[in-house]
Amino acid sequence: MAEYIDSGIFNLSSRPRIQSYASLAGKKEGEGPLGRYFDLVVEDSHFGKDTWEKAESHFQCEALSMAIRKAELTKEDIGAVCAGDLVNQCISSTYGLREFEIPYIGIYGACSTMAEGLILSSVLVDSGAVKSCAAVTSSHFSTAERQFRFPLSYGNQRTPTSQWTCTASGAVIVSQTGNTELVGGCIGKITDMDVTDMNNMGAAMAPAAAETIRRYLTATGTVPENYDCIVTGDLGTTGSRLLLEFLLKQGIDISKQHHDCGVMIFDPETQDTRCGGSGCGCSASVLCGYFLPMLERGEIQNMLFAATGALMSPVSVQQGESIPTISHLVHLRRVQQ
Amino acid sequence: MAEYIDSGIFNLSSRPRIQSYASLAGKKEGEGPLGRYFDLVVEDSHFGKDTWEKAESHFQCEALSMAIRKAELTKEDIGAVCAGDLVNQCISSTYGLREFEIPYIGIYGACSTMAEGLILSSVLVDSGAVKSCAAVTSSHFSTAERQFRFPLSYGNQRTPTSQWTCTASGAVIVSQTGNTELVGGCIGKITDMDVTDMNNMGAAMAPAAAETIRRYLTATGTVPENYDCIVTGDLGTTGSRLLLEFLLKQGIDISKQHHDCGVMIFDPETQDTRCGGSGCGCSASVLCGYFLPMLERGEIQNMLFAATGALMSPVSVQQGESIPTISHLVHLRRVQQ
Repeated sequence: MAEYIDSGIFNLSSRPRIQSYASLAGKKEGEGPLGRYFDLVVEDSHFGKDTWEKAESHFQCEALSMAIRKAELTKEDIGAVCAGDLVNQCISSTYGLREFEIPYIGIYGACSTMAEGLILSSVLVDSGAVKSCAAVTSSHFSTAERQFRFPLSYGNQRTPTSQWTCTASGAVIVSQTGNTELVGGCIGKITDMDVTDMNNMGAAMAPAAAETIRRYLTATGTVPENYDCIVTGDLGTTGSRLLLEFLLKQGIDISKQHHDCGVMIFDPETQDTRCGGSGCGCSASVLCGYFLPMLERGEIQNMLFAATGALMSPVSVQQGESIPTISHLVHLRRVQQ
Repeated sequence: MAEYIDSGIFNLSSRPRIQSYASLAGKKEGEGPLGRYFDLVVEDSHFGKDTWEKAESHFQCEALSMAIRKAELTKEDIGAVCAGDLVNQCISSTYGLREFEIPYIGIYGACSTMAEGLILSSVLVDSGAVKSCAAVTSSHFSTAERQFRFPLSYGNQRTPTSQWTCTASGAVIVSQTGNTELVGGCIGKITDMDVTDMNNMGAAMAPAAAETIRRYLTATGTVPENYDCIVTGDLGTTGSRLLLEFLLKQGIDISKQHHDCGVMIFDPETQDTRCGGSGCGCSASVLCGYFLPMLERGEIQNMLFAATGALMSPVSVQQGESIPTISHLVHLRRVQQ
C-alpha cells in the first residue's frame, strides 16, 4: 500500500526496489564527461537501421533487453512496461518495444518521462497489480531536431540558451528485489511561467523543478541535507542557475546537493552544446549509467531524481502559446544492510 | 491492494469507484444516434477559440470541469489526472488541463486512452497514493484529419474502410465514492498483424481487442454471459465484424454482449461516416454519456470496457512500418445495494 502524504505526493509502504537498469548513449554522448559510464556507446547514429526513427526505437529495444538480461530475467517475467518518448505519437517506444509483447502503458511526459515511468512502475508494483514493471525512454538528436526545429541539412545556428537533444536511452526494472528502494514520489503539476522561447527550455522548466522539489521537501518534512544528491533532468546551465535562485528565494539551498543531467552529460567547452543536454534519454541514461550504479555500490545513500519536461509542440508555439512544463520526482534510497 | 491475476491482469481489492463523469460532443456527434445522451453538444467546431487545437483543449477543460462540478468537488480535491490525446505531444491535454494545477500524468494510448487512464487512475486510488484521480481524453475531427491525413481544404475522398475521428471528450473521476466499482483490468499488449493501411484501423485494432478480451475472460474464469455488455472503443463496422470472428474461432461468442462505440456514435446511412467513429473522444464520450449512466441507474450491472488504439504515426507509416495496436480493458460493476 502507498501512503498519501499530500496532493500528488506519496510514500510507497512496500518499498519497491530497483532490480536492474541499463543505459545506451550515442557517439557524442560517449565522448562527453560521462562516456565511460554508459553500458553501450553506439557510434552509428542510425544504429544499423535505415531511418533515425527506427534507430531510436532500437535504442529502447536494446536498453530494455539489456536490463532484462542483467536481472537474469526473461521478457515474460516483466509484468508491464511504462514507456514514452518525444517523437510524435511516441513511435520510438511503440515500435521499439513491440516485439517484447509485455503489457504496455504508453506515457507522455516529454523529458520527464523516466521519472514519470518510475512513479507509475513503483505504484503498480507497490499496489500488487504487477510483480515487476519496466520504465523505458529514449531520445535521438536527429529525430528531435528535425521534428521540433529545422531539417538537419539546413545547418541552422544555435542560440546561446539552446540545449542539445541527447541520443540516448535508459531502462529500469522495478520489482521487490535489489538494493535500491523507491521510497516515495511526487507527481508534478503543470507549470507555465509564460516562457515562449523554444530555444530556452531550461528557463521554462526551472520553475516546475523548483516547485516539485519544494513540495516534496515540505510534505515529507525533509531538508536538502537529508539527501546526498538532488538530481534534475535536463535544465542545462541556465535552467540550473534559475532553479537554485528560485529555491533560495524560498529559503531552500540545494546548491551542495544539486546535479543536473543536462549539465553533466556534455562538456560545453569542447562539445559546442551551449547550455547542455536535453531529451528524454538525457536524464534516463545519466540516471541508469551514473547515479543508480553509485547507489548500488553504496557511494551515495539517498537521492531525489526530478526529471523535467516541456509539454509544448511546434504547433502550440506557432499558435502563440507559452510553454507548459512539468517535473516528476522519485525518492531513491540504498537499502541499509 | 491490488491482486495480481496474470501478466498485466489484476483485481482491485479495494474496489475504487466512479464518483462522476462528463461527456462533450461536437455538432456531427450530437446529430448522431447518441446525441441526446451527451452532457453538452458543442455546435461550433472552434468552441469559441481561434484554432482547432485550442478548441480541443477546451473540450478537455470543460469535460473535467463538468465532472468536478457534478461530484460537488473543487479542483483541489482531485489528487491526480491521467490524460492524453492524439495531437502531437498531447497538447490538447497539457494546454486543456494546465489551469487546473492538478498533479498531471501524461499518457499516450491513442484511442485506447480512456481505458488506459481508468486503469492508472484506479490503481493509483487503490494503492492509496492518490485519493481521487481523473481520467480525461479528447479528439477533434479537424486536428486529427490535418495531422494524420490531409489538409481539410484538400477535400479528399474517404475509403470505404475509413472511420471518422469524433470531436468529443470524456472525463471520469475515480475515488472511493459512487455506485459503480472498478473490479479489475487488463493492461494491453502491443499487437501487430502487419496491417499497413491507415484507412483501415478497425482491421488493425481488432486483433488487439480480441486478445485483451480473451486474456481477461480466461484469467478471471468468466464467460461473456457474465457481463451485460462487452464494449469496444472504436473498431467500427469492419473491425467489429473481425473481432467477433477472431473470438469465435477461439470458442468465445460475444455477439450478444458486444457493442462498439465507433459503430454506435454515428448513423452510417445518413452521416457518411463509412465504418463509424474513431478518436480518443469516441469511446470516452460514449462511455461517459451512455454506458456509465446506465450502470448508475442500474439498467446494466456488469460491463467490460475495452478501448482500442493504433500506435503508429504518419512518419512510421511513410517509413514502411505496419500499424501496432493495443487494447486496454477495465471491468466495471454496479455496486449491489
